[in-house]
Amino acid sequence: MKSFRRELWFDVPTRRAFINITGHVEDALRESGIREGLCLVNAMHITASVFINDDESGLHQDYERWLEALAPHEPIDQYRHNRTGEDNGDAHLKRQVMGRDVVVAVTEGKLDFGPWEQIFYGEFDGRRRKRALVKIIGE
Amino acid sequence: MKSFRRELWFDVPTRRAFINITGHVEDALRESGIREGLCLVNAMHITASVFINDDESGLHQDYERWLEALAPHEPIDQYRHNRTGEDNGDAHLKRQVMGRDVVVAVTEGKLDFGPWEQIFYGEFDGRRRKRALVKIIGE
Amino acid sequence: MKSFRRELWFDVPTRRAFINITGHVEDALRESGIREGLCLVNAMHITASVFINDDESGLHQDYERWLEALAPHEPIDQYRHNRTGEDNGDAHLKRQVMGRDVVVAVTEGKLDFGPWEQIFYGEFDGRRRKRALVKIIGE
Repeated sequence: MKSFRRELWFDVPTRRAFINITGHVEDALRESGIREGLCLVNAMHITASVFINDDESGLHQDYERWLEALAPHEPIDQYRHNRTGEDNGDAHLKRQVMGRDVVVAVTEGKLDFGPWEQIFYGEFDGRRRKRALVKIIGE
Repeated sequence: MKSFRRELWFDVPTRRAFINITGHVEDALRESGIREGLCLVNAMHITASVFINDDESGLHQDYERWLEALAPHEPIDQYRHNRTGEDNGDAHLKRQVMGRDVVVAVTEGKLDFGPWEQIFYGEFDGRRRKRALVKIIGE
Repeated sequence: MKSFRRELWFDVPTRRAFINITGHVEDALRESGIREGLCLVNAMHITASVFINDDESGLHQDYERWLEALAPHEPIDQYRHNRTGEDNGDAHLKRQVMGRDVVVAVTEGKLDFGPWEQIFYGEFDGRRRKRALVKIIGE
């Protein structure tokens, strides 16, 4: 069994953003030399998500508006977590809706995807350096 | 290490439905000959889910009503995604709540489940042929 | 390829709770002897979650209040599932928001975590013995 590990780093200038990382994961897979196996991609931070959906800017605006309705950023003091001095209570909730990780099948050396699947890093508390992890195991 | 891949195809006649696919995943596992490992099951489409919960019709009606309240199908024009000509903006949101994939342990040649765990394909934009993927790795 | 399996048992005295199980998963990993691979942790019950987030009590109170707003426990009869004689319809919904399972990379014999990642068992229908599963595969 082979294994391969790569960190992907982000420094999102805004509080929230969705970034297509499919190409970076494909690069990691190619370098791994793994042909059959599983590829885990996860946020290493607890105010960010990794998820699979469509690369369509209107949809991303829908996600932004919907998540903000489900878990509004303001007022800050509605979250007990923010009594620690943070202002990211909402980000911990949004991340649960969108998910921490995805597992993708690796088949014949490729990410085994349906026609529209793309991998995104979802940032909900940006403006600092943060990471996602790619771990691939197989043969 | 062994690996095994199977596509499960669906042609749901309604917009939304929950389909128990546990038997199909068990069939794939049996054919794989894998005794110890991990089994990934994921929707290959971004308006559908694979999730694990109870096979109880009242619960499925509760999910239907709850998801429709969290992300209503209508009015169509509330979603920017629908400006692309689609009417499935809501389906992309519902799928995030229910999840894209599950990973199930394989132990002694069986899906290593608690007493009530069943695997479902959740369709949120049906009336066409769509797929889920089963990928099993192990020994 | 090696594999290792462990059940973690809980008997939560309240209906709902969040329990940090990171240490138990680390113990399982150490005993497995696996250095590189993937570690699956999942609830074996369909009214409980396993998720990764921060070990901060204010945040856990935020989750409790938020989930109760998204899927209130009462009135019981708002859920068709409860016509079966259960009163846990809400727990099946809450569990979908927080997720059933997490997959964690194993690197150099450790859970390959970012700085604040901790694994939690989320109970939404306690007051009885229930289980989570740890399954590790790798080398």
